[in-house]
Amino acid sequence: MSTEPAAGPPASIAIALYDGFTALDAMGPYAVLATHPGSTVTFVADRRGPIRDDQSLTVNVDTAFDDLPDPDMIVIPGGIITRRMARDGHPVVDWIRRVHPHTTWSTSVCTGAVLLAAAGVLDGLDATTHWIAYDQLAELGAHPTGERVVIRGKVATAAGVSSGIDLALTLVQRWSGDFVAQAIQLGIEYDPQPPLDAGSPTKAPAKVLEVVGRSMRAAEAASLA
Amino acid sequence: MSTEPAAGPPASIAIALYDGFTALDAMGPYAVLATHPGSTVTFVADRRGPIRDDQSLTVNVDTAFDDLPDPDMIVIPGGIITRRMARDGHPVVDWIRRVHPHTTWSTSVCTGAVLLAAAGVLDGLDATTHWIAYDQLAELGAHPTGERVVIRGKVATAAGVSSGIDLALTLVQRWSGDFVAQAIQLGIEYDPQPPLDAGSPTKAPAKVLEVVGRSMRAAEAASLA
Repeated sequence: MSTEPAAGPPASIAIALYDGFTALDAMGPYAVLATHPGSTVTFVADRRGPIRDDQSLTVNVDTAFDDLPDPDMIVIPGGIITRRMARDGHPVVDWIRRVHPHTTWSTSVCTGAVLLAAAGVLDGLDATTHWIAYDQLAELGAHPTGERVVIRGKVATAAGVSSGIDLALTLVQRWSGDFVAQAIQLGIEYDPQPPLDAGSPTKAPAKVLEVVGRSMRAAEAASLA
Repeated sequence: MSTEPAAGPPASIAIALYDGFTALDAMGPYAVLATHPGSTVTFVADRRGPIRDDQSLTVNVDTAFDDLPDPDMIVIPGGIITRRMARDGHPVVDWIRRVHPHTTWSTSVCTGAVLLAAAGVLDGLDATTHWIAYDQLAELGAHPTGERVVIRGKVATAAGVSSGIDLALTLVQRWSGDFVAQAIQLGIEYDPQPPLDAGSPTKAPAKVLEVVGRSMRAAEAASLA
């Protein structure tokens, strides 16, 4: 599939939701992209109506995939459920396969990369995902890296959950320059000051990494049953 | 009103939504708090049904204020609309006034602090908000500070939009210690790497600050008309 260098800023941006998505994966990029001049962000799904995340949020989606047939850019969030979706097939994966050849940007946050990979978008390509899913991404034909944001041609992938904010700001900077990216960053007061420094597998204490890994793998196993 | 030192972790956490809220203000803390052991997060509003944010998101709220009468913790997101809500009154402000005496934590992100102040929660108290609203917060009786997270007794306020992630991690660390806070930080891979360093009014170039300030004040003026 095409990974040629991308054109200018996307006019229409579709953030794809599905039952079991992780909210911040979608809402991080949304916070940045929804205020990008000239872009319109739309939440889409395989059907109109309520879509439930992996905790207690329900989003009312007004736009089905067929209502927005040729989005310039797609954003695919992740979730514990993505391994199952990649195994069993899912309308989101079919949709990615259908729209990707016509996008100017195909992007993912967290294990949204697993869905891009399941649709064949990441074949032989450097990409990133939540650290829990590096192996799975490799099994699906991508070359996982530990970078927070990976851009190859028109395909941009981000690491786990919160990294979608960095992905979106990086793309805005590329499309519209420093001034616009700085303005959006200032608008959302993105001057991060986490109280601890454990946000990546290379920084977290070994015991924390072990416990979180075990817990996430258990949740994933439960979703596969 | 009471600002005595707070008790332990909250079992029930209510994130209050209203038409015109800014999504990331709510979704940042949600991403952290929804995985905190022993806490249940519920989105609430003055009515059940669809609540629209300030862009293109619609959340389906299942729980009206009266359905969850005594939340241990409240989280109030901001939005351009808050100045109008403080001026005209709003069911969210009435609700804050009603539940705050019984909470163990009353918190805000961004101009959610304006709603806390309108309800009398911040009278004479150090607090923070989006940088655009420092003056307004002072007019409403609070002492605005430029810190990213301000905790005074059981009242915790955060700066603009993205700061709710830092607020929530800070509270989790206080409630449950470093290990749990590190585990949640690693789970959401919160290792921020913004491509530029313009996320606060002290860091952004003067011209960016001027343009964003003018644009936000214009949007606010339109919302007041």
